[in-house]
Amino acid sequence: MSASIKVFAPATVANVVCGYDVLGFAVNEPGDEVIMKLTEGSGIRITKITGDEGRLPLDPQKNTVSASVQHYLNHIGKPDVGVEIELHKKMPIGSGLGSSSASTVAGLFAVNTLFDNLLTNKELVPFAMKGEELACGYGHADNVAPALLGGFVLIRSYQPLDIISLPHPDDLYAAIVYPEVDVPTKDARQMIRSKVLLKDAVTQWGNVAGLVSGLFMKDYDLIGRSMTDILVEPTRSILIPDFYKLRSLAMKTGATGFGISGSGPSVFALTKDEATARAITQKLQQHLKGIGINSLSFVSEVNKKGPVILD
Amino acid sequence: MSASIKVFAPATVANVVCGYDVLGFAVNEPGDEVIMKLTEGSGIRITKITGDEGRLPLDPQKNTVSASVQHYLNHIGKPDVGVEIELHKKMPIGSGLGSSSASTVAGLFAVNTLFDNLLTNKELVPFAMKGEELACGYGHADNVAPALLGGFVLIRSYQPLDIISLPHPDDLYAAIVYPEVDVPTKDARQMIRSKVLLKDAVTQWGNVAGLVSGLFMKDYDLIGRSMTDILVEPTRSILIPDFYKLRSLAMKTGATGFGISGSGPSVFALTKDEATARAITQKLQQHLKGIGINSLSFVSEVNKKGPVILD
Repeated sequence: MSASIKVFAPATVANVVCGYDVLGFAVNEPGDEVIMKLTEGSGIRITKITGDEGRLPLDPQKNTVSASVQHYLNHIGKPDVGVEIELHKKMPIGSGLGSSSASTVAGLFAVNTLFDNLLTNKELVPFAMKGEELACGYGHADNVAPALLGGFVLIRSYQPLDIISLPHPDDLYAAIVYPEVDVPTKDARQMIRSKVLLKDAVTQWGNVAGLVSGLFMKDYDLIGRSMTDILVEPTRSILIPDFYKLRSLAMKTGATGFGISGSGPSVFALTKDEATARAITQKLQQHLKGIGINSLSFVSEVNKKGPVILD
Repeated sequence: MSASIKVFAPATVANVVCGYDVLGFAVNEPGDEVIMKLTEGSGIRITKITGDEGRLPLDPQKNTVSASVQHYLNHIGKPDVGVEIELHKKMPIGSGLGSSSASTVAGLFAVNTLFDNLLTNKELVPFAMKGEELACGYGHADNVAPALLGGFVLIRSYQPLDIISLPHPDDLYAAIVYPEVDVPTKDARQMIRSKVLLKDAVTQWGNVAGLVSGLFMKDYDLIGRSMTDILVEPTRSILIPDFYKLRSLAMKTGATGFGISGSGPSVFALTKDEATARAITQKLQQHLKGIGINSLSFVSEVNKKGPVILD
């Protein structure tokens, strides 16, 4: 065996404002790349990681890519296959854009392709969730499921896992800005209260239902009206510099809706077209620069494919 | 003026299990009838109420039908118009089937028709909510909105009011059984805890999103899987005799999903066809009879029209 494959998997925006832990969508950029080769030897080796500034472990038991690939190999009854992995991080770590998820999904898609697609992308979700557990102490699916399936994804239930692909308007764009401040996912989760008022929960699930309806109806206004989070955003926004100012700028510049990507600090807007998305990232980056914060930005259509083979 | 009109408005199933306070649907039967006549005199008179066993007030300020009609007349700038109303209750009061809502909606649809449909049915919702406030101390919309619009309705938001009509599979049937025990809406609401665990709320809004998706996708399995309520049903079910036995019987007989209608004590199942719905009501009524409880049952398609003019 000497097959080799290069795979791209997309970044993702989890929660989508009101859908904490149940909604997410994928974008066309950024994302990560994995090059994988089956070898004559035995066991998984990570031969190279680029773009991580030395932050990710090469130890195959600690790295989320290799760990989830090992789960996959165990599952298909080939635990001792030799695998060499190169990971090329093409997106910031700890940015709230599903960085670990993109790497893990690229690895799983690669190994599954090398083994003739024994599993569907949907069936790969639980393996990717194992990687998330390793990366952030909690096996959530709202990044890995959209990274694997593309588009918008609903995780209706975790036990049992029940994943539904949702439609979206064809021309929906995402404008993402990553302010370069540090917000570890674990801390961001721990800040959130464990109890909430039922009446606030009702408000929230009205919005979740509205967002899902808006996606099916391709109704931008309804999507936008529904992108309101009264439970999690008020807490998480504290960690994001000038969050409400950024929101106000985005909305004034024509955003359909705006919010925190995953646990932050990245923020995102959904827009009806590319020009609006670009105008928003420009305004937001300008504002952040004005308060002394460097940022990165990404503009792309909502991803429709999930991971893809490159070359 | 001596125009007269007879209107039917449908019963409704609020909450639809997971969608507490935000979802509801209408059925073709039961429902209430209102006969309304504009008169030369001034002010609203309730000339007759049948089918209420003397439980509803004839005082136009206390009766939900006349009170909401008065709100409507005030709004259109004709507060002193003479109106005579006959209300024919054709459904049980306090059953959890939107009894007050059916009467109120029939009255509002009648007066709006007599005034050449100055408002749309959707615009009538806030007037009907005034009636609900009078009837149960809380101006909710999850009965009146589906009664006015037919089909499944989402109340995305109460402030501002945002009502979305949802699609449903054409052949969706409802099987309703009303065990004749008393569960006042006010008490049923007060039993519910005001605080909930965020993780339970997440489970709930996953199901709400799943149910809405299932309705759009016409996916009976997804509709059924999503009809789970971990927040409200565990408390409310205490007031319903043998609730979990009834659920088990309904599901074994082929129900897509099963739950409490509104605040109970009526229970309902959604089914793929009429025969299954009939089999379910039969099994449930038989069981209730066995434990000494009288019941009424109703089987109908999900209502597609809202209120209609009779004759």
